[in-house]
Amino acid sequence: MSTQPKTDTFAVTTGPLPASKKIYFEGTQHKDLAVPAREIALHPTANEPPVVVYDTSGPYSDPDASIDIKSGLPRLRTDWIKARGDVEEYQGREVLPEDNGNVSDSHLVGAFPNIPTPLRSKDGKAVTQYAYARAGIVTAEMEYVAIRENLGRAEIAEGLIRDGDPMGAEIPDQITPEFVRDEIARGRAILPSNINHPEAEPMIIGRNFLVKINANIGNSAVTSSVADEVDKTVWATRWGADTVMDLSTGRNIHNIREWIIRNAPVPIGTVPIYQALEKVNGVAEDLTWEIFRDTLIEQAEQGVDYFTIHAGVRLAYIHLTAKRVTGIVSRGGAIMAKWCLAHHEESFLYTHFEEICEICRKYDVAFSLGDGLRPGSIADANDEAQFAELRTLGELTKIAWSHDCQVMIEGPGHVPMHKIKANMDEQLKHCHEAPFYTLGPLTTDIAPGYDHITSGIGAAMIGWFGCAMLCYVTPKEHLGLPDRDDVKVGVVTYKIAAHAADLAKGHPAAQVRDDALSRARFEFRWEDQFNLSLDPETAKDYHDQTLPKDAHKVAHFCSMCGPKFCSMKITQEVRDYAASGMADKSKEFMEKGAEIYQPAEGAKVDAAE
Amino acid sequence: MSTQPKTDTFAVTTGPLPASKKIYFEGTQHKDLAVPAREIALHPTANEPPVVVYDTSGPYSDPDASIDIKSGLPRLRTDWIKARGDVEEYQGREVLPEDNGNVSDSHLVGAFPNIPTPLRSKDGKAVTQYAYARAGIVTAEMEYVAIRENLGRAEIAEGLIRDGDPMGAEIPDQITPEFVRDEIARGRAILPSNINHPEAEPMIIGRNFLVKINANIGNSAVTSSVADEVDKTVWATRWGADTVMDLSTGRNIHNIREWIIRNAPVPIGTVPIYQALEKVNGVAEDLTWEIFRDTLIEQAEQGVDYFTIHAGVRLAYIHLTAKRVTGIVSRGGAIMAKWCLAHHEESFLYTHFEEICEICRKYDVAFSLGDGLRPGSIADANDEAQFAELRTLGELTKIAWSHDCQVMIEGPGHVPMHKIKANMDEQLKHCHEAPFYTLGPLTTDIAPGYDHITSGIGAAMIGWFGCAMLCYVTPKEHLGLPDRDDVKVGVVTYKIAAHAADLAKGHPAAQVRDDALSRARFEFRWEDQFNLSLDPETAKDYHDQTLPKDAHKVAHFCSMCGPKFCSMKITQEVRDYAASGMADKSKEFMEKGAEIYQPAEGAKVDAAE
Repeated sequence: MSTQPKTDTFAVTTGPLPASKKIYFEGTQHKDLAVPAREIALHPTANEPPVVVYDTSGPYSDPDASIDIKSGLPRLRTDWIKARGDVEEYQGREVLPEDNGNVSDSHLVGAFPNIPTPLRSKDGKAVTQYAYARAGIVTAEMEYVAIRENLGRAEIAEGLIRDGDPMGAEIPDQITPEFVRDEIARGRAILPSNINHPEAEPMIIGRNFLVKINANIGNSAVTSSVADEVDKTVWATRWGADTVMDLSTGRNIHNIREWIIRNAPVPIGTVPIYQALEKVNGVAEDLTWEIFRDTLIEQAEQGVDYFTIHAGVRLAYIHLTAKRVTGIVSRGGAIMAKWCLAHHEESFLYTHFEEICEICRKYDVAFSLGDGLRPGSIADANDEAQFAELRTLGELTKIAWSHDCQVMIEGPGHVPMHKIKANMDEQLKHCHEAPFYTLGPLTTDIAPGYDHITSGIGAAMIGWFGCAMLCYVTPKEHLGLPDRDDVKVGVVTYKIAAHAADLAKGHPAAQVRDDALSRARFEFRWEDQFNLSLDPETAKDYHDQTLPKDAHKVAHFCSMCGPKFCSMKITQEVRDYAASGMADKSKEFMEKGAEIYQPAEGAKVDAAE
Repeated sequence: MSTQPKTDTFAVTTGPLPASKKIYFEGTQHKDLAVPAREIALHPTANEPPVVVYDTSGPYSDPDASIDIKSGLPRLRTDWIKARGDVEEYQGREVLPEDNGNVSDSHLVGAFPNIPTPLRSKDGKAVTQYAYARAGIVTAEMEYVAIRENLGRAEIAEGLIRDGDPMGAEIPDQITPEFVRDEIARGRAILPSNINHPEAEPMIIGRNFLVKINANIGNSAVTSSVADEVDKTVWATRWGADTVMDLSTGRNIHNIREWIIRNAPVPIGTVPIYQALEKVNGVAEDLTWEIFRDTLIEQAEQGVDYFTIHAGVRLAYIHLTAKRVTGIVSRGGAIMAKWCLAHHEESFLYTHFEEICEICRKYDVAFSLGDGLRPGSIADANDEAQFAELRTLGELTKIAWSHDCQVMIEGPGHVPMHKIKANMDEQLKHCHEAPFYTLGPLTTDIAPGYDHITSGIGAAMIGWFGCAMLCYVTPKEHLGLPDRDDVKVGVVTYKIAAHAADLAKGHPAAQVRDDALSRARFEFRWEDQFNLSLDPETAKDYHDQTLPKDAHKVAHFCSMCGPKFCSMKITQEVRDYAASGMADKSKEFMEKGAEIYQPAEGAKVDAAE
């Protein structure tokens, strides 16, 4: 199959989700902000305001937006960035054949037709959100995320109950721009925002904000299509991915990434060593600092918002993995381990770390310090190799901060439930509260095909304990590359984990959606129940499989109990009864006829079906 | 659609799972025991013994067994039961038209053709496993479950690591029959085993044993087919259901249940009030103790192994639900609440509880004390209604024990993560360590269509904390009745939760399967990886979607990284390197050529595909 893109093959899913409307909040300090959220309307009988939920889908879900993949998304941050006066346009690095794997013309993915001129910082200035925050500057990005995180909860503040066990998190009732600034300045949150990815809507990753999720996409040497990857990016954000990592390997990496970034409404992360390895034809020991450095600049100019850098895989730690059941399972970790062994030298990522910081500082690429020695099995969890690396990541965090860079820390992996908390505790202790970003963790190894679930359990728990972002795992983990359906299942599963964590932490607005959905369920507002769910399509489809008639969607019963008896209806009677006092009411109750089932209009009941 | 069974429509899935062989362990104290387990063979290159796993599938997975749904399963316990000399055959209760909902002949599910004569205890003797245990008797059933729980781990005892946080559980290295007896005598475990369900293979539910799972099946007034329900029972146990609850409502309840019990290799639970309600045409206030009592005897004679009895829904607690978001969501709870309100009387389940005990004692039906006031939403979790009922269930536990009955306690429901532990703690405190049996709990309300996942998170956690059995939730929860696929997904999800809990508790043999699978993964034994997984079919199918060629299943790479580079292979190099000392080995490593990829025989690599 050719990987050449037919430009007419780009097709992404657009338009609002059911009953949903894109709304935009305005800024106060920065007047030109239009911070998106999704408003889910309820049925008039609910007599309730619409529910406002966080919206990662970008312009694609706005029916008023014109979408053209070949032009890319509007560059919403460009004016803010330029207004700060500390960046300059320049002639970027030339794209080289090896950037796309020296692929022949017939297999070359066409270049994105609308490539912007790259920006970099002027005169050695720091253009990172961290630097601004440390300098006391509240950027437009910071105000944007403050508004975004609040979800308009000021308007419903009275009804909000703070109920949870925050496990050390300190989430305020209202997020202010100043709070955002302070959290970034303390290194407790990051706002990934490469100055060359102005299309991305600002978002924040930190323990005192909503728990975020990442979706991985990317072609591989085995399967590949640029249209698929752009589609998956848009699709993942439609269902709630807060960031997307492009883990492409194989050919056409550069051009595919350009298409993705220009059309991504969320920050894009990469693992630059993957592309560097392609440039040396997959021979790890041929990697050099110069090739890696060049790759960082290449990707920074394109607009990658965060880099996974496995600089904690030090030569001295590698032998610690020798007796593991599954050794080194991180690709980046394995590449660097091989390099270190081949040269018997300290990793160039470690020895050149400050130079990497200088590059990141120039474009505001955030660090995602990779856990190259993460456990790949239950047997290997929390071992010395893993924690030795974690302590090094803590050292590197301080170095990155000293260069004005934003930092988060990657975590495992495969961890049984009783060892999850220790991961969070060790990370907080050794990494100075820099945000934690974990893959799962998977709580058992025995369910390939269901690793979204084995890991969703661990993800929910570590999210509660303080993990700031959860990297999704799809059903295909360990088995193959996720397709579109897998991406959706992975994202929805991780939205569940993140939301369960927000509830457990006592996020002030998290329970609003649960309560609205539960009231809809109780009152048999089936459509509201579907619309409020994370995946309205699937909820409706499952309902319709048992009760396909439209009339049933307004019926006062569900397929579990059938029409004759309904526990929800009985509760209404309990309420009426309680309202009128508990004493001697049984007579009246009986006189009313005590009818439970009132046929919904048009709902024909076919009990024998 | 007619529900009349065509006897030729019965089709259930039989035969072993891939690479699996049914093995049987012999007894020591009871020589005629043949305790089943499943042995999963590994590829010869693994040079590892087969992995023995718990097997709930009954004779259906034994290629030597002859299966005939119209005859039912062999009655493996009948000799043991009769040998104890304390039971008698008798002319059972006559089946009445109302037992099947007064259904017309044309809609009547045919009676099972091979109905056994019921047994009951002689002369007021207690025939419960609890009574035997208290009397110091180790029954054949007790030895059976001791062997079953061990999974032959004596043979691999040396390699077993006790690694976990048992949270108060006390799981011995080896389960002895005496340990089983003691746990049952202390009320910390139950062995559901109605003397009229001798087809069921003994199993145990308790905090110091493997965590168990239950699958719900059952027709409803809306959809119904006896063949489907028998098939779902067999199907659920094939994937690991330890017990099955028949939650049928509507018509033909009696006859469908007979077909299920006679063909069920696991204990069957019911909620008898569902059938009692059918007998009064769905009018809760028309229920009487006499109708309920008669239903209990009807079901006990058929062989139901445990009854959900909502005797904790007391009149005084009902008003506590009035201000809930979702009121009373338990059907049984709602039925009794309605009855109590209508009559303004204490629940007959509570006032007649000792008479219920006497019935259960006569057949050894275990109690599953129902949580009729469980929370149906995050908002209602851990409220006073729920905990008031729980305390009453604790009182009833002691009463049931005083009548020689076995007891477990049902639990919620919808509970955010931070409130889960309190459920377990309160249950242990108030219910005297009787086994806990929870539905999920669901950790958020916002994902209908994915409630196997929202609840799998909570189930894994509460299993770790000490819950003995987890009632599955399928993707159709809140939306419709589960079909065959939903049953499988629900069971596999809950096997994940139960196994993750066993790992976290430090069950001595739990990690054996994880480690074997992880080694298979590391060594690219793809078929072993599939075969060791909870769902080999799905694992293989997902793999083949990306790499469909048979050759790829022996290839030393996977679709995530492709053939050029593989982190697993690098680890092997790390091992070799570490084994030969860390000093000055880089030269040798380079000289070896440092080739990562060795093409597997016949594995053609099509990178452009």
